[in-house]
Amino acid sequence: MNNNPIGIFDSGIGGLTVTKEIVKQLPDESIIYIGDTARVPYGTRSKEIITRFAKELTNFLLKRNVKCLVVACNTVSSVALEEIKKISPVPVLGVVESTIQLAIKTTKNRKIGVIGTVGTINSKTYDKKIHEINPKIEVDSIPCPLFVPIAEEGLETHQATKLLAEGYLKGLKKRQIDTLILGCTHYPLLSKIIQAVMGRKVSLVDSAKPTAQSLRKILEEKRLLSNKKPRYEFYVTDAPERVLQVASRFFGKILNGKLQQITLPTL
Amino acid sequence: MNNNPIGIFDSGIGGLTVTKEIVKQLPDESIIYIGDTARVPYGTRSKEIITRFAKELTNFLLKRNVKCLVVACNTVSSVALEEIKKISPVPVLGVVESTIQLAIKTTKNRKIGVIGTVGTINSKTYDKKIHEINPKIEVDSIPCPLFVPIAEEGLETHQATKLLAEGYLKGLKKRQIDTLILGCTHYPLLSKIIQAVMGRKVSLVDSAKPTAQSLRKILEEKRLLSNKKPRYEFYVTDAPERVLQVASRFFGKILNGKLQQITLPTL
Repeated sequence: MNNNPIGIFDSGIGGLTVTKEIVKQLPDESIIYIGDTARVPYGTRSKEIITRFAKELTNFLLKRNVKCLVVACNTVSSVALEEIKKISPVPVLGVVESTIQLAIKTTKNRKIGVIGTVGTINSKTYDKKIHEINPKIEVDSIPCPLFVPIAEEGLETHQATKLLAEGYLKGLKKRQIDTLILGCTHYPLLSKIIQAVMGRKVSLVDSAKPTAQSLRKILEEKRLLSNKKPRYEFYVTDAPERVLQVASRFFGKILNGKLQQITLPTL
Repeated sequence: MNNNPIGIFDSGIGGLTVTKEIVKQLPDESIIYIGDTARVPYGTRSKEIITRFAKELTNFLLKRNVKCLVVACNTVSSVALEEIKKISPVPVLGVVESTIQLAIKTTKNRKIGVIGTVGTINSKTYDKKIHEINPKIEVDSIPCPLFVPIAEEGLETHQATKLLAEGYLKGLKKRQIDTLILGCTHYPLLSKIIQAVMGRKVSLVDSAKPTAQSLRKILEEKRLLSNKKPRYEFYVTDAPERVLQVASRFFGKILNGKLQQITLPTL
């Protein structure tokens, strides 16, 4: 048993979609969440900068005695996970591996698509890790850079979003993938329009459920489950009005007044 | 005479559209430009964070002995200009005031529209400053949050952009403004589509030309013009491939290999 909190971080508030699922599957666990809203988004930045920012977030959580770290951001999980593992004395879980395992279980025709930020797609992490498990699977990955601002602006049902989605996903449709990984924590908010564009036969796989399941397994195996009344702490590096609104939408519960703003010591 | 460089900063590389015009109007002036590409965009952040980041950029340029400062960013000019003036021993020029003067000269029916980031529009700086000069002018201001990522993605001619522009600008059309301020350094890249949506009779006013003209006046008045062969230095806080490409597009000249990456000391 270990009643210390789980540490979760993201470049912003997208990771709250994963956190919501962790709270659901592990209701006895305390959580400290930090989103780097002063510097979001990470998806367009270089590997060097993403790694430095991610280490700063890691240090913030390690100082608060978390018993494990969840990197609830596909970009950081794709680009900087190994670097975070190097500096962390506690287990580190990204969102890529468990999502990939679910996608491999799901595909029947062995054609998987991946969509994500420019950083995630350029890293080729999904392609490499799928091929490590099964080299026969065809993987097509495409960046969808406007999906993050669209989700944050709440334009999921706008006709412009449909047009953009059709453009981004055209290639994946042609390749007849049967499974599509939503490789960004913001994308589940666009799942309706993505499903409509891809057609009913394509299974969408996102990171929230498989990551929460993997986390449960790790805590069980390492005997780190908690038996105390849980506490939740939410930190952000900037808290303009708009972040408060969007955070509540992503987490599925009102978070107003619960987001504490802090300044992150820089490396 | 003063052969020290002009210091120009922006949250990212949008300020290069203003810099391009300054180079054109003041070809003998040396320039040091810095864009905070590791933390762009600023337009969605709080006043507190924008002010801190802007002061860090100001300090970077002041240490390099600039003879004046140009804040080539509408968000910073709207939100943090007074704070920058407080810490700067050299003249500080934002992009708001000269743009407003041009817009007031341009309007005939005394109805001016302003579009910009959420930060710029929420600050109400344009509205206030126009009314300080002429309280009889009607001002309508609207945030267009997706225009920045659209310009950076090069989607100016995409059908989705037209749909989004129609949505954003609908209210301004109804109010029959005859002059529209493009209150963000990225927006001139979208001027064709904005003009098409607003109609030919509406004059678009952007910050590049009036800011360069004001700068010339200030340098003349304060006898700060240079008579040396100019030197250009461009700094960014992050330089992924994509920044290099977009920077050249914004500046109108190839900048590959000319952007130096630095780490900004934090306050």
